[in-house]
Amino acid sequence: MWIVPEAAIADLVSREASFDAVEKVFAAMAARDAYNFPVVREAIGHEDALYGFKGGFDRAGGTLGLKAGGYWPHNLEKRGLINHQSTVFLFDPDTGKPAAMVGGNLLTALRTAAASAVSIRHLARPDAKVIGMIGAGHQSHFQLRAAVEQMQAEKVIAWNMHPDMLPKLGETAAELGLPFEAVDLDGMTEADVIITITSSFAPTLMADHVAPGTHLTCMGTDTKGKQEVEAALLARATVFCDEVAQSTSIGEAQHAIAEGLISDSDIAEIGAVINGTHPGRQSADEITLFDGTGVGLQDLAVAAAVVETAIEKGVAIEVEM
Amino acid sequence: MWIVPEAAIADLVSREASFDAVEKVFAAMAARDAYNFPVVREAIGHEDALYGFKGGFDRAGGTLGLKAGGYWPHNLEKRGLINHQSTVFLFDPDTGKPAAMVGGNLLTALRTAAASAVSIRHLARPDAKVIGMIGAGHQSHFQLRAAVEQMQAEKVIAWNMHPDMLPKLGETAAELGLPFEAVDLDGMTEADVIITITSSFAPTLMADHVAPGTHLTCMGTDTKGKQEVEAALLARATVFCDEVAQSTSIGEAQHAIAEGLISDSDIAEIGAVINGTHPGRQSADEITLFDGTGVGLQDLAVAAAVVETAIEKGVAIEVEM
Repeated sequence: MWIVPEAAIADLVSREASFDAVEKVFAAMAARDAYNFPVVREAIGHEDALYGFKGGFDRAGGTLGLKAGGYWPHNLEKRGLINHQSTVFLFDPDTGKPAAMVGGNLLTALRTAAASAVSIRHLARPDAKVIGMIGAGHQSHFQLRAAVEQMQAEKVIAWNMHPDMLPKLGETAAELGLPFEAVDLDGMTEADVIITITSSFAPTLMADHVAPGTHLTCMGTDTKGKQEVEAALLARATVFCDEVAQSTSIGEAQHAIAEGLISDSDIAEIGAVINGTHPGRQSADEITLFDGTGVGLQDLAVAAAVVETAIEKGVAIEVEM
Repeated sequence: MWIVPEAAIADLVSREASFDAVEKVFAAMAARDAYNFPVVREAIGHEDALYGFKGGFDRAGGTLGLKAGGYWPHNLEKRGLINHQSTVFLFDPDTGKPAAMVGGNLLTALRTAAASAVSIRHLARPDAKVIGMIGAGHQSHFQLRAAVEQMQAEKVIAWNMHPDMLPKLGETAAELGLPFEAVDLDGMTEADVIITITSSFAPTLMADHVAPGTHLTCMGTDTKGKQEVEAALLARATVFCDEVAQSTSIGEAQHAIAEGLISDSDIAEIGAVINGTHPGRQSADEITLFDGTGVGLQDLAVAAAVVETAIEKGVAIEVEM
């Protein structure tokens, strides 16, 4: 089997490769050629850690396995390690033998940004120019870099709960050659694409903050109780997601569903748009919203691409298991 | 992190070490210092394979992780590989970083035999002399070797659906210096300890085949629908298990529960006997029955012991993840 350590990942994976892998696996999911297993997620009662497994099988891509790991909230302060820790394990679907072990930390950020970017490619207006960012943490930089590659961006506007984090996101915008402006939430009506990437348990972005024709990608909500946008916004928007079961239970849609504003059948998989079985955006005034919860198959897809590249470049470590 | 390949395991793990690891983790489970996560088990629709994850956390032993793998029924005929394929992954509970990857095939056989042996140590009559084996497949040899170390065995009697497999089990008995006799199921009344280790979907061993004072260890039933012994036997016996939730859902007890012959509260964890909070066997006439379904923590416990030995002996492979 092959081993690709975390430190090797940055040189092995591009945003383009992540985009292609995630787009392809979303398509396979919608075509029912790939499915995710039930998620295991446990508060283990030690170090306040959340630990678990996200597995799946992509028959089309021949990818079987899981991402294992979770969130250790004291890693950074206590040990100088990042708090999100994960590892991807791939198995040979023909034999059940382990095929690869791949560091999952950078991959998680890349596959999350890629999901958001896939939704922008397929759902934003072709003339979208202004990107609005809600959130300015670690992940927001990955999101911004991936988003600008899928549109003719001319400007970045941003809001964050802690405004002191905004200048750093401004630096990333500058690197991308884009003007940057910190705005109030009211100012978000200027955006054509809005990315929410926060860990919030109450809505930040309200329906009034969003102009007609906007594409929203809500990437922060992946747990029961979390919420980034007002539920009324989902009732007004055409809602898309990675996986309906996750969207309605742990995603942004959980609240609109609970309030009876929308039902499961109002939510389409982004894969159906990719496959052409759903028309996607149908007018320039339509608000589209992508609820990205993060599925195991995304991790497996980008990890499989990394392993292939690592073998080609001769940097994968081979061990006989 | 450390890697211990499958081929290295045989030289690294003894039955004694497996016994100690499994006994300790059963005790930790009963003391609520260790718990198993929900099991993921998926028929993936490829190669007729069953694939999944059994995870857990043992706070007492500092062991966190999972066994991943499953059953590929065509491996042997198509590829000369064993059908059960699994790998154990251990994580550092303080940081969430991967700590070890260990071949899980031999370990699965050893931890299953160790569970059975732990139940014999704690529940069989001290004067038990005759071991009855129901089943003569691959696992039965591991079971027999582990069992005889926990009693003053004088004889092995055995029954198997296919009698042509019995002579091979007789060879193992001979190696252990024990006389061996193939018997009808009626002949099992001679046994003081009976081990059932078959993949049966209908009861083989009936209540009339078991004499008073016998200790039964039922090790073959680990899936909904499987059954090795008549449900009435569980009503007559004092029933013990590794984990009550598994015993009543996928273990031998599922049938007695479904028929209303016993209830959850009639089943005790073997760990409670180890810890001394349950008296265990209380008379020489009592029938005791251990329902061993196999929990992830057993795998993690023996894998952790193997890693320790492998590091000591200098055979663990170190990789920087």
